[in-house]
Amino acid sequence: MTMNPDYNTRVDLFKESPTRKIDVIKEKLQQEGKDIILLSTGQPSIPPPRWAREKLAEELLEESMKLYAYTPTQGRKTVLEAIRRELEEHGLKLGEKQITLTAGGQSALFAAITVLFKQGDNVAVFDPMYFGYWPLLDYAGVNVIDIVEDIKQGFKPDLDKLEEIASENKLKAVILVTPDNPTGRIITREEAERLASLAEKHGFYIIVDEAYRTLVYEGEHHYIYKYAPDRVIALNAFSKDPGIPGWRLGFAYGPEWIIQRVKLVVQETVYCTPAIAQRLVEIYLTDRKRREEHIERVKQIYMSKRDAMISEIEKTLPKAEYVRPKGGMFLFLNLEEYLKPKSMTAEQLSLKLLEEKGVATVPGSYFSKHYKYALRLSFVSEKPERIREGIHRLAQLLEEI
Amino acid sequence: MTMNPDYNTRVDLFKESPTRKIDVIKEKLQQEGKDIILLSTGQPSIPPPRWAREKLAEELLEESMKLYAYTPTQGRKTVLEAIRRELEEHGLKLGEKQITLTAGGQSALFAAITVLFKQGDNVAVFDPMYFGYWPLLDYAGVNVIDIVEDIKQGFKPDLDKLEEIASENKLKAVILVTPDNPTGRIITREEAERLASLAEKHGFYIIVDEAYRTLVYEGEHHYIYKYAPDRVIALNAFSKDPGIPGWRLGFAYGPEWIIQRVKLVVQETVYCTPAIAQRLVEIYLTDRKRREEHIERVKQIYMSKRDAMISEIEKTLPKAEYVRPKGGMFLFLNLEEYLKPKSMTAEQLSLKLLEEKGVATVPGSYFSKHYKYALRLSFVSEKPERIREGIHRLAQLLEEI
Repeated sequence: MTMNPDYNTRVDLFKESPTRKIDVIKEKLQQEGKDIILLSTGQPSIPPPRWAREKLAEELLEESMKLYAYTPTQGRKTVLEAIRRELEEHGLKLGEKQITLTAGGQSALFAAITVLFKQGDNVAVFDPMYFGYWPLLDYAGVNVIDIVEDIKQGFKPDLDKLEEIASENKLKAVILVTPDNPTGRIITREEAERLASLAEKHGFYIIVDEAYRTLVYEGEHHYIYKYAPDRVIALNAFSKDPGIPGWRLGFAYGPEWIIQRVKLVVQETVYCTPAIAQRLVEIYLTDRKRREEHIERVKQIYMSKRDAMISEIEKTLPKAEYVRPKGGMFLFLNLEEYLKPKSMTAEQLSLKLLEEKGVATVPGSYFSKHYKYALRLSFVSEKPERIREGIHRLAQLLEEI
Repeated sequence: MTMNPDYNTRVDLFKESPTRKIDVIKEKLQQEGKDIILLSTGQPSIPPPRWAREKLAEELLEESMKLYAYTPTQGRKTVLEAIRRELEEHGLKLGEKQITLTAGGQSALFAAITVLFKQGDNVAVFDPMYFGYWPLLDYAGVNVIDIVEDIKQGFKPDLDKLEEIASENKLKAVILVTPDNPTGRIITREEAERLASLAEKHGFYIIVDEAYRTLVYEGEHHYIYKYAPDRVIALNAFSKDPGIPGWRLGFAYGPEWIIQRVKLVVQETVYCTPAIAQRLVEIYLTDRKRREEHIERVKQIYMSKRDAMISEIEKTLPKAEYVRPKGGMFLFLNLEEYLKPKSMTAEQLSLKLLEEKGVATVPGSYFSKHYKYALRLSFVSEKPERIREGIHRLAQLLEEI
């Protein structure tokens, strides 16, 4: 791509997002008129509630710059206050300077990693992990220490292992996604408490990615911040709830000295976060009752889709391993028993499945060095019958190979 | 702010945006019920045209994820194509991979600087320069070489000086804003051609910031890219036209190998640019005739405001120096003759003017190491009579001190 080597070659660590490769093939097939079943995408399938969109549509017609002007980098006070109030109900006490808006979850990831990490820092991560972290950690030049989560243990984070690592190394931080992408695992209160006490004992930070925190189907989301407020930086997004992934709004909260620097990184990368997304989220968060009804409805729909996926897996893929997702949008399907004997990787399977059967998935290898024969399946985009059909075609393909 | 030094202390180079300081005082005074005349802000005062907002408002009510979904990082094809077509009319030939969207102008600045610059690179800039560049250049660790633009020469970029610098140093790049913020100066075709030929002869890059390119009142905007397509990275924004600063959409164009890396930086900092801003801009750019009418109307309004400012300056500030802005939103007013004898800096004056006379301005020192006694005045926010009143109060204050 280049004839000129005189640039910051470290940016080449920022590779094209791996799901884009799948998107390109998918779009090509769609243009050829092929109907593709989408089990690949992490996007909600339900737009924000109509009442919130109606209000915003009205305001678009006002002859004023209010909806269009720059906002403070940290965000409009009303939005920050609505977030603060909601977190307070979950027992989190946060001062004014402990929350900042970000331009989506990605912007929160980038900013937190830019602020906290120096070249050579030891950072523990749980494998499998959302693939978006890898290029950022590479760019920061940190030393990543993987802790494999055992599918047979329900992808529980192995905190004994973490303690061992923290005892043997100067650990800067651990990264945890809960509810998890790609496994749908959530952490228990005991795990949250133990993580917090390990962080305090060994002096490391916890970067906790809570982008799916309102999409919990069984049990509840536990906020680690409560147990170690000086040690936890929490990253959040409005992409999944209220469902505006393309509008780029998220937030981060944690210790003031970190959050104020996260804000500076957001300032220098985007100046402020999208004002129109802030306004929609403000409308959405402020009408508490209708918001709860909306989330409840969305959760019911996603849960029934999840259950359709599970029942079809049970029926057609007896040798597959998976853990029933307690939250989020994904099921992580281990097909080792099918693929290993044939020496076929998940990448090869995913490609074949897309090209020959018209089903888009994401190879587990994008999330894991350990799980080489897994697929990440999204259960939110398609209707239940198409989810069943997608799993059915996967089973067919596994029989054919 | 910190008790813990174990972080990436380089982010402390990202200081709070200097105009925020003014905003904080301004907001405090406004809360006290004081009416403030805003000559500080670089925001348009006219929202996007109603027909475009109406179309978007309709689409907000559709029960689909279309308006909310992630887009490719580079941007929706339709938007990129509309931009490409427009630039083509100005004689620019750009391939598909030579344009990428960015999350506003700031995101384009951040990405271009991140891709191109390495620690210790020599980078020439013209003083005064938009203040947003300073923290980014500090963070990149480059060696900045200032070239003062003489107000008596209409802030013409001193290309003799640039040639001298490029002959004596290994120059990595020069940064040029045209139409300029804060001076309103535009470059001539001859200057564009000479800059291009210097870049090619000496092997440096030109980062040209064209955020105000459609707001030219006299003469026309010259696209340097035409004269040195391998050497020019152009940064643009939709903040000023169609007037959606808070929605964060801009674009960059230039050599493919650079733009593809700019895209990767945008991917890692924000994943994609705001989908709703893309849609509004698509609607706006596609209706060519009505777009032109809108810009024409906006330009007429801004021009009459500029002229109101100039006539009041002529009337009340005979010893002030300025150059009639040919484009953009600002006039750079040199008050050396008033302030130097009193040993008063522009920062002191700007603060006094805000607190005692209720007029918000930006000290020229935010843009310049050379012009210590200047103010940047925006002529777009207020109505002509209030602009006159603001200048009148400035003249009063200068008499009082």
